[in-house]
Amino acid sequence: MALPPPARPGQRVEEVDTPALLVDLDAFEANLKTLADAVAGRGVRVRAHAKTHKSVDIALRQVAAGAVGVCCQKVSEAGILVDGGVADVLVSNEVVGERKLERLAALAGRARIGICIDDAANARDIDAAARRAGTRIDAYIEIDVGARRCGVQPGDPALSLARAIKDCANLDFAGLQAYHGSAQHFRGMAERREAIERAASAANQTRRLLESEGIGCPTVTGAGSGTFMFEVASGVYDEIQPGSYIFMDADYAKNDWAPPQPRFRHALFVLATVMSRPVPDRALVDAGLKASSVDSGMPMVWERPGLRFARASDEHGVIEIAAGAAAPAPGERLLLVPGHCDPTVNLHDGYVCVRGGVVECVWPVSARGAVF
Amino acid sequence: MALPPPARPGQRVEEVDTPALLVDLDAFEANLKTLADAVAGRGVRVRAHAKTHKSVDIALRQVAAGAVGVCCQKVSEAGILVDGGVADVLVSNEVVGERKLERLAALAGRARIGICIDDAANARDIDAAARRAGTRIDAYIEIDVGARRCGVQPGDPALSLARAIKDCANLDFAGLQAYHGSAQHFRGMAERREAIERAASAANQTRRLLESEGIGCPTVTGAGSGTFMFEVASGVYDEIQPGSYIFMDADYAKNDWAPPQPRFRHALFVLATVMSRPVPDRALVDAGLKASSVDSGMPMVWERPGLRFARASDEHGVIEIAAGAAAPAPGERLLLVPGHCDPTVNLHDGYVCVRGGVVECVWPVSARGAVF
Repeated sequence: MALPPPARPGQRVEEVDTPALLVDLDAFEANLKTLADAVAGRGVRVRAHAKTHKSVDIALRQVAAGAVGVCCQKVSEAGILVDGGVADVLVSNEVVGERKLERLAALAGRARIGICIDDAANARDIDAAARRAGTRIDAYIEIDVGARRCGVQPGDPALSLARAIKDCANLDFAGLQAYHGSAQHFRGMAERREAIERAASAANQTRRLLESEGIGCPTVTGAGSGTFMFEVASGVYDEIQPGSYIFMDADYAKNDWAPPQPRFRHALFVLATVMSRPVPDRALVDAGLKASSVDSGMPMVWERPGLRFARASDEHGVIEIAAGAAAPAPGERLLLVPGHCDPTVNLHDGYVCVRGGVVECVWPVSARGAVF
Repeated sequence: MALPPPARPGQRVEEVDTPALLVDLDAFEANLKTLADAVAGRGVRVRAHAKTHKSVDIALRQVAAGAVGVCCQKVSEAGILVDGGVADVLVSNEVVGERKLERLAALAGRARIGICIDDAANARDIDAAARRAGTRIDAYIEIDVGARRCGVQPGDPALSLARAIKDCANLDFAGLQAYHGSAQHFRGMAERREAIERAASAANQTRRLLESEGIGCPTVTGAGSGTFMFEVASGVYDEIQPGSYIFMDADYAKNDWAPPQPRFRHALFVLATVMSRPVPDRALVDAGLKASSVDSGMPMVWERPGLRFARASDEHGVIEIAAGAAAPAPGERLLLVPGHCDPTVNLHDGYVCVRGGVVECVWPVSARGAVF
């Protein structure tokens, strides 16, 4: 049973029902520009990560702003983006299972599709699916550069896998996926720089090894919104995959930010209403776990000193009011910066895009729930 | 852009793509029966909490099993349940805002609708909305019985509010909402018993006070899946609102369970596929934050000793493999018990209901995303 859209263009933001997912269009557009300016003339491509927004409208704007294409994490996400007109999608993840590979291979007949691989048998399965579909897929070897998630070890294990991929007639070996996910939220700049220097070194050594064995390594790709200027500075990365930069969130706000990493503006908010003031030092808002993911910490109350979002249940947010703070009244609306933007957008059906206090447009979260 | 349904009736569970939200129908039905048996002849009504499942199919089965109606947390949830044929819905939450109250009042023309109130001005707003719509709404006073969330204090503050409600021509004072949310997950039985004894005492004293002032208090309602037999034993509660009992989850599994609290079976799972085995002691599954909410802890790997779900990113679940454990192979499927069932179901569009290894039906998560 479909829900009505969360807002209508032309509404004043005061008329938008809550909870709602808001985009500050001025801040969002400034973030697109900040990224483009940061990498201008540095010789790296931008492949924006669509997992952050799951939106055709936003992906197309990223491409218009200069991105070569996007990344995503799931075959179903890729399908939705391609349906929406995105011509180049890297599924920056491993994919296992006949049905998923069939869909991936079919998609490669309609757009440029890339996949990450860390296992030779999986490479052969992907190749077989592409052959049955009569398509070709760009195959990136994922190397573990410190995140301890997926990926072969740098060096010889990557060489073995590259040889296996070169034997796959319908795969085009595209290079290395070298993404250090956990480094993105190392709080200190020196920590992040160090982690990326090690990642870049591992990626570079792996590329040199492959080249010395006659295997060209077209692209080294990776990086995120917390570190990308370090990947750029290394001279090793050809392409960066920042996602969260368009929106930011409360977890990223806890990082230190200093040159060369540009600071992005908060552009994503959950609009919430105070529905209870049971005692002087507490307010309850109508946005809880089901409006804002708390996996990386609580939301932050925007521009309200002394109001701290302390805990959440399914549909309640508990705001603690510090002594002397300007306390909100029942019915008052607050903006919350989500703790973690990516899983938060996946809770909502649409972005309410606001400029100058007015709803300018509503963008669907096109790939909401696309987990398979 | 609509996603295809997660499965088709008649499929073997091995054919269901992942991640998928699975219901073990035998366990689910056993849980319905366990609850009914536990309260049979005890003089309390069951008003099952629909926030746990957000499903018309499940709500109707709960009513068929003897529930007088359901609870939910949002006006939009109530609308969807009423559209689906549920005749009696208590919105066990405070609701503020003209548009929401308009919708609530209109709904009261099509079903029996209740609301919780902890503020006299809000009571008057609800009353005005009901008058404009020509409907009547059951008004419950929420008292804070220890959860420190919404609610007036027991005793005199509740009496003041009751008088205000009695002055509202379109509200019917229905009694007290006395739900101790945080007690549900106190690990020890003695802790939970103690907390509920205090809650019941506060509710009882409040009821007696109202009655002594000539205000009848028809119903005391509350309780959850972790404590409800204590509410029953108190003799104070007329109605209980258990939700999670139908499914259970990894957080509830950490509670102690002993008579009189029945133990329920795990009936809700996220089916996931191993998509990477990068090192001997690690497996990655395709179910991360966007398939399973980690607000109350990580999922549990079902019936696989030595496999521990250690951390999650958006679309990756990291499984640590203990030395000597039977390690899963790439492509192997695992069942995960969600950390917290309520926000997990809200990530999915449908329940894949399985019996004897075969998909029997797919139930929509009817009110997925209904946060307003």
